[in-house]
Amino acid sequence: MRELEDKIRAEGKVFPGDVLKVDSFLNHQVDTAFMQKIGKEFKRLYENENITKILTIEASGISMALATAYCFDFCPLVFAKKGNVSSMDTSSYVSKVHSYTHNHDYHVHVSKNYLKKDDVVLIIDDFLANGEALNGLLDICEQAGCKVVGCGVAVEKAYQPGGRMLRDRGVRIESLARVSKMTDDGLIEFC
Amino acid sequence: MRELEDKIRAEGKVFPGDVLKVDSFLNHQVDTAFMQKIGKEFKRLYENENITKILTIEASGISMALATAYCFDFCPLVFAKKGNVSSMDTSSYVSKVHSYTHNHDYHVHVSKNYLKKDDVVLIIDDFLANGEALNGLLDICEQAGCKVVGCGVAVEKAYQPGGRMLRDRGVRIESLARVSKMTDDGLIEFC
Repeated sequence: MRELEDKIRAEGKVFPGDVLKVDSFLNHQVDTAFMQKIGKEFKRLYENENITKILTIEASGISMALATAYCFDFCPLVFAKKGNVSSMDTSSYVSKVHSYTHNHDYHVHVSKNYLKKDDVVLIIDDFLANGEALNGLLDICEQAGCKVVGCGVAVEKAYQPGGRMLRDRGVRIESLARVSKMTDDGLIEFC
Repeated sequence: MRELEDKIRAEGKVFPGDVLKVDSFLNHQVDTAFMQKIGKEFKRLYENENITKILTIEASGISMALATAYCFDFCPLVFAKKGNVSSMDTSSYVSKVHSYTHNHDYHVHVSKNYLKKDDVVLIIDDFLANGEALNGLLDICEQAGCKVVGCGVAVEKAYQPGGRMLRDRGVRIESLARVSKMTDDGLIEFC
């Protein structure tokens, strides 16, 4: 999506430690008109998939997921929550996720009430790097027995292994901007 | 908003410790068509206020805030982040919030880049009980020097002090459903 690449070039900021900040329009301040365009693009890409539910993870995936759900005839959105769930709690699907950014593990969980066997799910998230968050959401969908048609990601760090690993497993990944290279002096290149 | 009251009566669940769960349509699964109606209602209530920015707090306020921003001509949305900020970091407005639900304090912060003196802000959140989260967001707006036209809340626990306290300070609060009473056997009454 050319417009997203342009926006990342114009507004994205690279910080040491391989950090790309796009918080002027994506995940702190949100450019809501642009978010609608992202939703329409995912609609175009997954047009004929009879999607019944959009799944994302709190917090920064939520606005993109809602914008996308609007474009899929206002289908329901579910956002996985982060945080610990008691091992006694059998009412949720739970998966463990490793954060490379913060170097710790956390749980993501979705109530069993909101993902069903007959759901056809599109997973949405803002970033794809090592693929840990998407892996967790895919694991939860597998536990629920629902069908995942694919994932829609705004920014993929294509030089990190997540995207390749997921595609090798047969998961359809649509990334609207694929960063091939970032340098600490602010250079951002796309595939 | 009658339709919200009906939905809370039909789908809301009361748990011991004064907990009202509405996670089937508001803050885990999201009924996106209903969210659009909520956005339109806030637009009706704050129609003539020339709002330039919607402010909320992660995570459960984000979908409602985006739906509302869509109704205000796609104005930008900013969501405050939770978590600690280094005291050395002067790039954000920071406020301390006490969570009565989890009985701990946490910080909320907004980058100084995304709230400006000339902004006219509508604050959106899903719940109002003790008013701690709204207080934190109001404090941040005061630090930024921007104008707050009011707050839009989905569910107010009217028997708790937050709403009264904020209205006594002169803050306009529009709550779409005001719960007057909840009992552990599942009874929910509205003002």
